[in-house]
Amino acid sequence: MQNRILRVACVQLLQKPTLTETHAHIRELVGSIPDGAADLIMLPEMWNGPYDAKRFPDFAEPEGGPSWQFLSALAKEKRVYLCGGSIAERDGERVYNTAYVFDPDGNQISRHRKMHLFDIDVSGGQRFFESETLSAGNRATVFSTPFCEIGLCICYDFRFPELARLMTNRGAEVILVPAAFNLTTGPAHWEILFRSRAIDNQVYTVGVAPARDPNASYQSWGHSIVCSPWGDVLTQADERETVFVAALDLERVRTVRRELPLLAHRRTDLYRLEWTE
Amino acid sequence: MQNRILRVACVQLLQKPTLTETHAHIRELVGSIPDGAADLIMLPEMWNGPYDAKRFPDFAEPEGGPSWQFLSALAKEKRVYLCGGSIAERDGERVYNTAYVFDPDGNQISRHRKMHLFDIDVSGGQRFFESETLSAGNRATVFSTPFCEIGLCICYDFRFPELARLMTNRGAEVILVPAAFNLTTGPAHWEILFRSRAIDNQVYTVGVAPARDPNASYQSWGHSIVCSPWGDVLTQADERETVFVAALDLERVRTVRRELPLLAHRRTDLYRLEWTE
Repeated sequence: MQNRILRVACVQLLQKPTLTETHAHIRELVGSIPDGAADLIMLPEMWNGPYDAKRFPDFAEPEGGPSWQFLSALAKEKRVYLCGGSIAERDGERVYNTAYVFDPDGNQISRHRKMHLFDIDVSGGQRFFESETLSAGNRATVFSTPFCEIGLCICYDFRFPELARLMTNRGAEVILVPAAFNLTTGPAHWEILFRSRAIDNQVYTVGVAPARDPNASYQSWGHSIVCSPWGDVLTQADERETVFVAALDLERVRTVRRELPLLAHRRTDLYRLEWTE
Repeated sequence: MQNRILRVACVQLLQKPTLTETHAHIRELVGSIPDGAADLIMLPEMWNGPYDAKRFPDFAEPEGGPSWQFLSALAKEKRVYLCGGSIAERDGERVYNTAYVFDPDGNQISRHRKMHLFDIDVSGGQRFFESETLSAGNRATVFSTPFCEIGLCICYDFRFPELARLMTNRGAEVILVPAAFNLTTGPAHWEILFRSRAIDNQVYTVGVAPARDPNASYQSWGHSIVCSPWGDVLTQADERETVFVAALDLERVRTVRRELPLLAHRRTDLYRLEWTE
């Protein structure tokens, strides 16, 4: 029988100057979660180097590299599912923004490469061009656990209602989003995005962001968040480093979908959203 | 050259006991808008009879019937575009929830029949089954004006991100939604829905609801709302009867789409949303 409560620990991390120090710091924060208190631990977007598009290639690591090894060992040590946030990944000449997921034995069970690259130029606000150094992934990601199917995408991916819907169509009841909104997009769109994707798809949404580092070139909005399938904010952090655990009652997904059957009411006889690959 | 400011007057109407009285009352409210102060006037959902699914057939009128004639004459009289909210429409044996749009000469230029019927059964909350008496429309609706292309859907239709996206794909820069959320779905989802569809599609969204009548069987949330393509709430009413005018600067649609090119960044090489009819 399925376990219907999924306890997710969100690690809103303040990155350290070196990778070794960051690994030690993640181990320390994760160590603060009592054994058995979480089923899945989640880290933020792009923690293996500065969040600076130009520098991603300098910090990119191959699959199986030091941060991958670190995450695998950590999952096994804590006996949890671990969504390792995302890191800069090198694959030959290409660099990706990649999220790995490990099971409680330390085996990689899923991988998402950011599909939509974040290029923004708001007058008087933020300018950031990921596509200058990154390549885009080409797959939507849903993985199986004993709890439920779980969707996974990275930050800007979540802006596209098509992707959240496609993950829902593949059975996702929870969508995980390592992310790093900034001080322009964060106050304007962060909370509403997690709430509205939850409402539209009747899923839990979980966003984990880096803590804000006043000295970093990219100022993270923080505000790691968990929303229910009815769109309530169950927990939301501020901008400071923190670890919190949210209990996701998966029966709530079924209740909401039964009471307001949005997914069943879609007019799939008239319109259709399809994966074309 | 296009006029790039569209002034929308939202009429949050309190329905009267008879159709004749309601017509007179609409005329009075619309009369309170100074001539030339609005380019488009909009009424709420289902104002030609009680918002009670069982009674829709009793109040349904054919196209060209009394309320249609009333709306056409009102548009011509005020020299404005008029989105007549929606009314129960009879077409042979079938009854629809239908929105008509008239131009400043009183000609009908568009019609939307609600495509998604609202059936909800929240424990301890709302129970309502439109499908017991209504038939569903089978077309998405976008119409042309000298200002811009305008999308139109009715209440529950707006719950489906696919439809808003399809209207955007057909060029909509403004989406009009006559609607009537209730005291369960209103506080939980009304504002977030109008804000999130605006953010995702980078369009203006306009929702016009009936004012709340404490004696009605269906308690309307009211809160008629206008949101910008960045997701800001430009105006929002409370639950009482009111008329307000919002100025929609259509250049803002272009600015937002240029600064954060969400629509251009969609991975249409990987997924595709299509009208299948």
